[in-house]
This record gives sequence, C-alpha cells and structure tokens, in this order.
Amino acid sequence: MSDKSVRKEKFLSVFPELVEELTDALKAYGMTPEAIEWFSENLNYNTPGGKLNRGISVVDTYIILKGLKSIDELSTEEYKRVAILGWAIELLQAYFLVADDIMDQSITRRGQPCWYKVPKVGDIAINDAFMLEGAIYLLLKKYFKQESYYVDLLELFHEVTFQTELGQLLDLITAPEDHVDLSKFSLEKHSFIVIFKTAYYSFYLPVALAMYAAGVADPKDLKQAEDVLIPLGEYFQIQDDYLDCFGKPEDIGKIGTDIQDNKCSWVINTALKLATSEQRAILDQNYGIKDSHKEAIVKELFNELGIEKIYHEYEENIAAQLKQKIAQVDESRGFKAEVLTAFLQKVYKRSK
Amino acid sequence: MSDKSVRKEKFLSVFPELVEELTDALKAYGMTPEAIEWFSENLNYNTPGGKLNRGISVVDTYIILKGLKSIDELSTEEYKRVAILGWAIELLQAYFLVADDIMDQSITRRGQPCWYKVPKVGDIAINDAFMLEGAIYLLLKKYFKQESYYVDLLELFHEVTFQTELGQLLDLITAPEDHVDLSKFSLEKHSFIVIFKTAYYSFYLPVALAMYAAGVADPKDLKQAEDVLIPLGEYFQIQDDYLDCFGKPEDIGKIGTDIQDNKCSWVINTALKLATSEQRAILDQNYGIKDSHKEAIVKELFNELGIEKIYHEYEENIAAQLKQKIAQVDESRGFKAEVLTAFLQKVYKRSK
Repeated sequence: MSDKSVRKEKFLSVFPELVEELTDALKAYGMTPEAIEWFSENLNYNTPGGKLNRGISVVDTYIILKGLKSIDELSTEEYKRVAILGWAIELLQAYFLVADDIMDQSITRRGQPCWYKVPKVGDIAINDAFMLEGAIYLLLKKYFKQESYYVDLLELFHEVTFQTELGQLLDLITAPEDHVDLSKFSLEKHSFIVIFKTAYYSFYLPVALAMYAAGVADPKDLKQAEDVLIPLGEYFQIQDDYLDCFGKPEDIGKIGTDIQDNKCSWVINTALKLATSEQRAILDQNYGIKDSHKEAIVKELFNELGIEKIYHEYEENIAAQLKQKIAQVDESRGFKAEVLTAFLQKVYKRSK
Repeated sequence: MSDKSVRKEKFLSVFPELVEELTDALKAYGMTPEAIEWFSENLNYNTPGGKLNRGISVVDTYIILKGLKSIDELSTEEYKRVAILGWAIELLQAYFLVADDIMDQSITRRGQPCWYKVPKVGDIAINDAFMLEGAIYLLLKKYFKQESYYVDLLELFHEVTFQTELGQLLDLITAPEDHVDLSKFSLEKHSFIVIFKTAYYSFYLPVALAMYAAGVADPKDLKQAEDVLIPLGEYFQIQDDYLDCFGKPEDIGKIGTDIQDNKCSWVINTALKLATSEQRAILDQNYGIKDSHKEAIVKELFNELGIEKIYHEYEENIAAQLKQKIAQVDESRGFKAEVLTAFLQKVYKRSK
C-alpha cells in the first residue's frame, strides 16, 4: 500500500470506535434500539465514504508541528485524539452534504444514493444532518473538555460552521439552478462564496485544529496560517471550477456539469468580465440550461475569450504569491512553514 | 395592558437590536447587501411570532432568583443580557420549527405560510434553519464570553439541542404520517419523545439559563430544577395531547388533528394499553387516517375506555407529586422553590 492509503486506513480504523461511543451516549439516555440503530446507520452512511483529505490533514499537520517523522511515533491514544479532531471535520462535512443534497435535489453522492433518497429516510435526513453536527460536540466534550483550549475548539467550530452557511446562502441566492440571471454574478461574489463555503472548513479548520492540539496556537500563528490557507482554498476552488470545464473526464473522474447547472463558477465570472455586449448576449441565452448544444456554444465562447490562458496566468501568479508568503512565515513561536508548503503542494498543478 | 403583555412587549423590544447586531456580524465579513437582507428576513419571519413563553420565562426566573419584585428593578443593560438568553431559546425553537415544518410538510405556522412555503425560499429554508442556530452562538459569544459560566452555556445549548433532535428522531421513526403501525407505539416511547423533544428545551433550558445568569447554578441546584421541570414538561405535553382530543376548540384555538395525523399521543398510547383485542382491531383500522368518520369511531372508543377520567387522575396525581417535590427543595445555596411553583401554576388545570 502507498503511504497515503496506509494513512487513510489508519484514520478509518478509528471511526467504528467513535460510532460505538456516540451510540453509547444514546444508550445512556435510554433511547430505543431502533433509534440507536438509525443513528449508527446515519453516521456510517454519511461520514466515512469520501476522500477524507480534510480529516487526514489534521493528523498530517500535527505530525509536522510536533517535529515527528511518521504517525508511527504517536501512541495509540495520542493518534486517536488527533484523529478525532479530523473526524469532527468529516462530521461537519457530512452535516453540510446531507443538507446540500436535499437543497440541490441531488441523486447520488460518493457512488451511492443521497441519504434523503434512501426510501425510508426522506426528509428525516434534515434531522439526521442536525445529529451529525451534534456528534461533533459530543466528541469534543468527551475528549477535550479538560484542555485549556476546549472553549477555543468550540468557538472555532461555531465560527467555521457559520462561515460555511454564509457562503452557502450567498451561493443559493446568487445561482439558483432553476433561474438564470447572470447579472447577479461577479468575481467578487465568487470569491466570497468559495472562501466562505469551502476554504474555511476545508483548509483553515484542519490546520487550526492541529495547531490547538499541538500547543502552537498563538493568535499570531493562527493568523499566519489563515493568511495563506484562505487564498490557497480559493485557488483550489478556482482550479476545481477550471477543471470542471477544461479538465479531461478521465483525469477528474466525472463529466463537468457547471455550465448546464448555472453554477456561479470562476470560469463564467471571468468570461462575464471580458465579454463584449454581443458575447454577453450569447452567454445570457445559453448558460445554465440543461441542453448540451447550448453548453457547447458557451464552451466555444470560453475558448474565444482565452479562459484557459487566463487560468494558467492566475495559477502561476497565486502560487508565486503563496510561496513568497510561506517563505516569510515567522517560526519563532513553534509554527512551521512546512505545514503550509504541504498544503500548497497538494493543490499546485493538480489535474484531478 | 396586562402585566403579561407588558412583559412580552419589553421582551420583544430587544429583538430588533439583536437583528441589527447579528446582521452587523455579516457586514463585518463583507457579505453582500442582498444576503444580509435575507438573513434579517429569516430572523424576523421565524423568531418572534410565537407566544415567547420560553424566552420570557428566562427573565421571570431570573427576577425570582435575584429576589426582585419586578423587571423594572433591572437596569437596561442587565435586562438585555437576560433577555438575550431568552431570545437564544427562541432562536433554538425557530431553528427546530423551520426544519420540522419541512419534515412534516406543514402549510402554515403562527398564522403565516411556513418559511419553506414562501415562494423564493423553498429548500433554502434548511440552510436558513442552520443560520438561526448559528445566531445563538454569535450572541452567546458577544455577551457572555467573559463569564466564568460561558462554557457551561455552550455545553448546555449543545446538550439540549441534541436531546431535542433525539426526541424528534424517535418521533419521526415511531409515527410517520403516511404509515400507521400502532405496534410501534407505547407509553414508554411517548414519555421519551415528549421529554426529549419538548421538556428539555421548553422547561429545563429557560430555568437553567436563568440560574447561570443569576449565579445560582450549583450542579445540585440544576439537578433540583431538572427533577421537577422534566416531569412537569412531560405533564404539559400529556395535557397538550389530552386537549387536542378532548379540549374545546374555542378554548384551544384550533381543531385537534392528532388522531387523523397518526400522532404518537398520550391518548392513543393510553387507549392501546387498555384495549381488548377487539378494541385494538378497531384502533388499527381507524387511527391515523385522514377521514373524519374513522376519527369519530376512534373518539367513541376513547370515551368507552374512559380516557378523560384517567387523564384527570393522572393530572391530580402528578400535580400532587410535583408540589411535594417542590416543597422539599433545598434553598440553602440560593435556589428558590418559587421558580418551580411559577412553572407549575402555568400548567396545572390549563384549558388552552
């Protein structure tokens, strides 16, 4: 197995214990066996099926901050505590995804029907989403209540959760799937949406959690991390938008649908900025419609506008800026620039 | 104006300031005016329209614990801080109700269309529910971060939120509106559902919050409060179930629908316990169906079984037990039995 899949297996091996402990909490309340089984299924169906990059990166960051060479240097107990912070992010993500799938009326997620599409579940999925969020605070209380930074963890989860919801709100009211109005789009809104909806919980949160756990969480250091990770998260999402339109299906593992889905993507926002009024009319008539011919017209226009070239310029520019910022990181309080380099390397010139 | 409506007006007068402060938080994030307006509408549409009993009872309890005669003895600032704890419960309730209405496919709430039924809203209501919950933690951080009991408030909200979700889960899987199976019902499940779904957040939470704010929150005192308020909350809900079936529409302000809606109510559970196998067959054939003739058959059977008499016996019995418990309350650490008496008086022999 590759190092990456070993780390994933190890991270996954903690999860059944957490399900056990979370369902024990329900047993302690005197909950019925049927409801306990339901909660267990909710956790298992919705939490571990993804790539787990966010959760695993909490462990990876902790290892770097502690100056260790490998996760094998952690005791079982220490590994579990850090992994729990990772699983708390995965639970947060599960909470968002279960709800997003209902709001987007999606059909499948991670190769299986969306939870709300499971026949017996339906709209009970909304309450199940709430309970996935609740599981975060049960775990934090059980494992971190004694720590001086416990309240910081609670506030961090509250803040990042709210930020993500803000991003989701702006996305939902800017780009409803059933009503195209490109005058609502702008690169500024796109930036806000991706930073709030994705960058805080996917990039900043894993590192901030590892910093608290490693005892390297001076506000100045959290700020240094945020100052790199938020633009890096924005870059990641811009890249994602770019790949949806210009990536090869065999690389990205799916066929992009952003154009037909009226997504407020970096690609359309860049096109809108550059378009003449004639080109704008073509976009107004063809974007956000479930019609592959219209989609092809939009793609052709994107090519005319040279979006690919603009993307590559953006990528080189942002990567250089981030490298420079990372080079200037102050490590005097124990924070390590390597944490940020590791994240940048995962994103730079990725094709899938 | 009656004393009660004066207190309600005063409590309501705080809310616009809170909306202002909460939307300021969005402005500080650089959110667009359209999204800020949306959040403001979400707060105003869903939070203040109810009776506000839960929120106002935080203030009432605080007054008693502080030994004051009236809210006029509180400074504007002190009143606002306590009222904010009350509004935090109302926000929690708004969060649940917005989601419950989607899960129950309800049409109206508090005399207006349910939020998800407002045309532009739809399933965005799910994210709006999340944001109502998020508002609780924004307010607690702004107003209570400096307090020694801040982390207790956070944990209390986490725990009570999760308890309510547990009650909701058991209710949803026990009594789906579209599939009648009375073998799933029992008085034990009913007790769990009403305690978790209603009693914790409606009865225990307001008192516990006021106790923290008044500095009378020794774990022994919280336990004394819980030991009375949870059975009192159960009694309140049993009474609610009773009134839905046997109350006069002119008293309760609505026509009860629990029988047709397949509700797991105290009335049906008591009937199931007493029914002969012939009577049980009648219930199986007629309960939970949208048909007023079948509903009348069920009501007739309830009368045969003497449910009204059983209810009145239960009421006298539980009221006597609660009075006795209240009489034994230990006030040595500053807690006051009067807090509990005030709650009991609001419930005992209520007809609406």
